[in-house]
Amino acid sequence: MQITAWQAAEAGAPLQLTNTELLPPGPGEALLEVLHCGLCHSDVSMLDNAWGVSTFPLVAGHEVVGRVVAVGDGVPQTWIGELRGLGWIAGSCNHCTLCLGGEQNLCADLESSVVGRSGGFASHVKARQDWLIPIPAGVDPALAGPLFCGGITVFAPLIDEAVSPTAHVAVIGIGGLGHLALQFAASWGCQVTAITTTLTKAEEARGFGAHDVQLLADLASTPNRYDVIINTSNHSLDWNAVVNALAPLGRLHQLGVVTEPIPIQAFALISGRRQITGSPTSSPASLRKMMEFCSRHQIAPMVETLPMAEINTAISRLRRGDVRYRFVLTA
Amino acid sequence: MQITAWQAAEAGAPLQLTNTELLPPGPGEALLEVLHCGLCHSDVSMLDNAWGVSTFPLVAGHEVVGRVVAVGDGVPQTWIGELRGLGWIAGSCNHCTLCLGGEQNLCADLESSVVGRSGGFASHVKARQDWLIPIPAGVDPALAGPLFCGGITVFAPLIDEAVSPTAHVAVIGIGGLGHLALQFAASWGCQVTAITTTLTKAEEARGFGAHDVQLLADLASTPNRYDVIINTSNHSLDWNAVVNALAPLGRLHQLGVVTEPIPIQAFALISGRRQITGSPTSSPASLRKMMEFCSRHQIAPMVETLPMAEINTAISRLRRGDVRYRFVLTA
Repeated sequence: MQITAWQAAEAGAPLQLTNTELLPPGPGEALLEVLHCGLCHSDVSMLDNAWGVSTFPLVAGHEVVGRVVAVGDGVPQTWIGELRGLGWIAGSCNHCTLCLGGEQNLCADLESSVVGRSGGFASHVKARQDWLIPIPAGVDPALAGPLFCGGITVFAPLIDEAVSPTAHVAVIGIGGLGHLALQFAASWGCQVTAITTTLTKAEEARGFGAHDVQLLADLASTPNRYDVIINTSNHSLDWNAVVNALAPLGRLHQLGVVTEPIPIQAFALISGRRQITGSPTSSPASLRKMMEFCSRHQIAPMVETLPMAEINTAISRLRRGDVRYRFVLTA
Repeated sequence: MQITAWQAAEAGAPLQLTNTELLPPGPGEALLEVLHCGLCHSDVSMLDNAWGVSTFPLVAGHEVVGRVVAVGDGVPQTWIGELRGLGWIAGSCNHCTLCLGGEQNLCADLESSVVGRSGGFASHVKARQDWLIPIPAGVDPALAGPLFCGGITVFAPLIDEAVSPTAHVAVIGIGGLGHLALQFAASWGCQVTAITTTLTKAEEARGFGAHDVQLLADLASTPNRYDVIINTSNHSLDWNAVVNALAPLGRLHQLGVVTEPIPIQAFALISGRRQITGSPTSSPASLRKMMEFCSRHQIAPMVETLPMAEINTAISRLRRGDVRYRFVLTA
């Protein structure tokens, strides 16, 4: 079938609206008409081929909310007309031990929405059925897109690591990920501290649920304080200060893909039985639970909405950090 | 009361048998007559003041098996005559949240058996009652000493981290800690691989329960293999190879206090949801469970026994690694 898509002809090129072909949904797949698509830093990395896995022409976009307009064999016809969301992952094998154990996001045969496939900056996008997540009542579809990548990235460290609501959770970096992490952690029942490089976002951080705000530069002055630190920053930090800010049994959850290795002092881990973890998005079950949690707690990203036709403007502004906190592009 | 003890007058000095004073057991304490005491690398570090916390004259020794000969207020008189073991920790506050939560080994007010106290290279040693662990039937008291430090150090990564018996566990370093880790992991029901720098200990490793033996230099050739890696080595390793040898959801448990920071690639943690943990000995509950486990599975350290009078020889030989795998000094 013919679709329209915002394609990049090569790495770094501006996107151009192009007519292109999409095969109809195969067995177990469904086709969405794209209504809204968030813009994520990972899209920029893909458009720049920063990770070396991009193929051009490239259609990025992996924070999709759309309406099901066609289904392949095995997908109920009742799906037609439903609103569904799609994130970074568009398919998994569903038969390996990890998939069968509910860890589909760790499947060795993952299909990404934008790696070797055509993503959500388009009129239509396809995915395998289990990765098309229902949008529950109470969630605004126009705001939901960023939940499917940015949202689940910071929800995973709570749900998949079974954080206790009695924990003191710190979030480093109050941006596209961090402002959602604060909301999730506060609704999770935790004591929540926002850690930021400047206090300009302090009031907003409190609005997202932070009980207090700490300057990153002051972290070294509060050793043994946090049960969980969710680090959304991809910059090199004073890692000794970060690890020592963990309480005994505390855990640093690293989400930012820092380029330089993180130097960890063995003694700091051993003496306090501290941990370091990381995670990539999450599973369909956790995605569904996140959506129900967002509905119950009225959690939503703070977004700036632009028409899809202004996607190049959005990309330029995201590159210079000029957005609070995510862009959503609307068809 | 008068006791005899093998004292070091200053850092690095040979031990000399000395008459010294010990106050009788206070409330909640008991006094052991020392029967056997293991020699641990940490004793050498304390005797060298390698960690800067030693006070001299120093009496080291923290892998004690002894007979209760006196008790303080609050300790049942029925303890008199019982065999009990004592490890690195001789007391905790028992009233902080960590203590009350069963994490007494992380208490901020720990008393170590050999830091500011007089240890087990002596005729007698005192400790608080909860840290004096019963020796169950089926455990040979003459071999049990090393369980209370070396043993619990490698049992903790299994019991406290709730390792599944379905896990594939690798143990790096087949020495005083590693040879016990192999036995524990095999009896825990796991698939067990011994990782060693030479194959000279391969047959012995299999005897301790390893299903196979891998050369450390080959670790990079087996990515995504292990659910748990227990690293007993305190040397700098090819850390990328170690972390990448973890399966998705796998965990590196670091026990060796490596001096240089461990450089961790964020992406390796994030992409496979891998973890890094560490731990210092464990709690009284885990110590008791370890002793029952040793009794049920006939787990014991392989030791060389020397009379306490040859303690300086044992220390010299341990310094050059000339022991398989632990020394026990007998009164």
